[in-house]
Amino acid sequence: VRSVVIVGTGLIGASVGLALKAAGFAGSIAGWDASATELSAALRLGAIDEALQDRDAVLSSKADITVLATPVLPILDWIQRLASTRGVGQLLTDVGSTKREIAALAGKLYGGEGQASFLPGHPMAGKESGGAALAEATLFHGATWLFTPLHPVTPIEAEWRAMVTGFGAHIRDIDPEQHDVVCAWVSHLPQMVSTAMSALLEETFAAEPEMQAAVQAIGGRALREMTRLGASPYSMWRDVALTNTEPVATTLLALEQRLQHMRENLRTPELREEFAAANTFRKQGLGIRD
Amino acid sequence: VRSVVIVGTGLIGASVGLALKAAGFAGSIAGWDASATELSAALRLGAIDEALQDRDAVLSSKADITVLATPVLPILDWIQRLASTRGVGQLLTDVGSTKREIAALAGKLYGGEGQASFLPGHPMAGKESGGAALAEATLFHGATWLFTPLHPVTPIEAEWRAMVTGFGAHIRDIDPEQHDVVCAWVSHLPQMVSTAMSALLEETFAAEPEMQAAVQAIGGRALREMTRLGASPYSMWRDVALTNTEPVATTLLALEQRLQHMRENLRTPELREEFAAANTFRKQGLGIRD
Repeated sequence: VRSVVIVGTGLIGASVGLALKAAGFAGSIAGWDASATELSAALRLGAIDEALQDRDAVLSSKADITVLATPVLPILDWIQRLASTRGVGQLLTDVGSTKREIAALAGKLYGGEGQASFLPGHPMAGKESGGAALAEATLFHGATWLFTPLHPVTPIEAEWRAMVTGFGAHIRDIDPEQHDVVCAWVSHLPQMVSTAMSALLEETFAAEPEMQAAVQAIGGRALREMTRLGASPYSMWRDVALTNTEPVATTLLALEQRLQHMRENLRTPELREEFAAANTFRKQGLGIRD
Repeated sequence: VRSVVIVGTGLIGASVGLALKAAGFAGSIAGWDASATELSAALRLGAIDEALQDRDAVLSSKADITVLATPVLPILDWIQRLASTRGVGQLLTDVGSTKREIAALAGKLYGGEGQASFLPGHPMAGKESGGAALAEATLFHGATWLFTPLHPVTPIEAEWRAMVTGFGAHIRDIDPEQHDVVCAWVSHLPQMVSTAMSALLEETFAAEPEMQAAVQAIGGRALREMTRLGASPYSMWRDVALTNTEPVATTLLALEQRLQHMRENLRTPELREEFAAANTFRKQGLGIRD
């Protein structure tokens, strides 16, 4: 692999560039972003060597590997537009948060005779705020990097997997439908709850200056953690909601019902069962711990 | 102040003992706990100098200050039982998570002529797991310690306030009703949501070994943070639910409605409004940040 082009040089895209360099990649890294600010920030950080001037430059790029690091809807657009411009021996990969629609579309357009290969991917890393300015070479260190392969591994795909391992990430292959269902539970639901709680608190206290001071003085780690993801950008999550609607709706409805059950049982021993199951989740069971 | 007795030597009670010593308190510290394990752990840690043998020893103690550090219902019991055993010049204070019922009861039994004084308190510090073994002298450092005073400050109450400041805590006086409403939003709601989410995930994945592996591999910081309080003990939260039922139910219902609204708008521009309000909460507005 001698050349990589990164489409979308925000937090994840720019971090990929920095991680490539930190891992000793000696080839060229070009980048493009719809935002001139993000693009120049990535260039300034050294995440990319060259800023492409427009979409046509992405299409005409001869890069060995094209990394799609935009939100999901633009990824779907790029998958379509790039298909006729890439060929055998080249790889497209992405870092999109949902995989079912991406895998379905890419499966139709790539991996066949005379076609480039495509490896859908999803690094389980990020921050609640986006942007190239927050990019880090170590962002993927210790993180799981999921792939939902469409076809048998090609040589260039094997190279990309090795590069990702070089970022310090742990690779795991998963079925795209299972990916989207599990991510709805462990990522999209927490995001929606954190957004809902932040929006609710904002609305409840915005017009209450005296209460605000109390909220600020009293709110501790629990409040900060439960609302941290409230800072996440709509631009990215809109596409998650649009491309994983049913699984996310299922988890939201289940939580609504669970909260209602707790609310109706604040004064009954049923509440004990909820705490017991929650304790099991954290201490045994799935063993999710800090 | 030459003597303190701590009733309930779990996480908070034992941390009070350690903080007193770290701040140079040279008097004696006795302790009692319904659990012999907690009591001997507190003694072993040096959080207390002497383990009282039974409830009668608490009642007959001549300590200048009695710190009630049990869950709220036992605090209410102790407030009742201790009233006839303490007198002018002595102070009772507590660290209970709700204040309306405690302040109401204590207001009837303390602070009058010939009576001991009572200062309801609530340090905004803790951990998701309880127990003396996790106690720390620095637990209250930088934390807000709320008081809901019942009567004009007495000399011994002023001494306790100074001691709490010596723990590194910031003192703030607040009305007990406002305390319970604000705590419902910033502490009790996050707790109930974290418990509900943990219990839901446990139930959803307990019988799905293959999915469990995926949940463990994929779940990241968002999942860990949003379920961290799932480890919290029922024993403490039962009393919060019982003594702050209406405010907690109000916040739960509001969040249920908000989640339903998001669920029904996953594919509409309404979702943008939710993210915008949430962004404001974290970045401007109340300015809750990490």
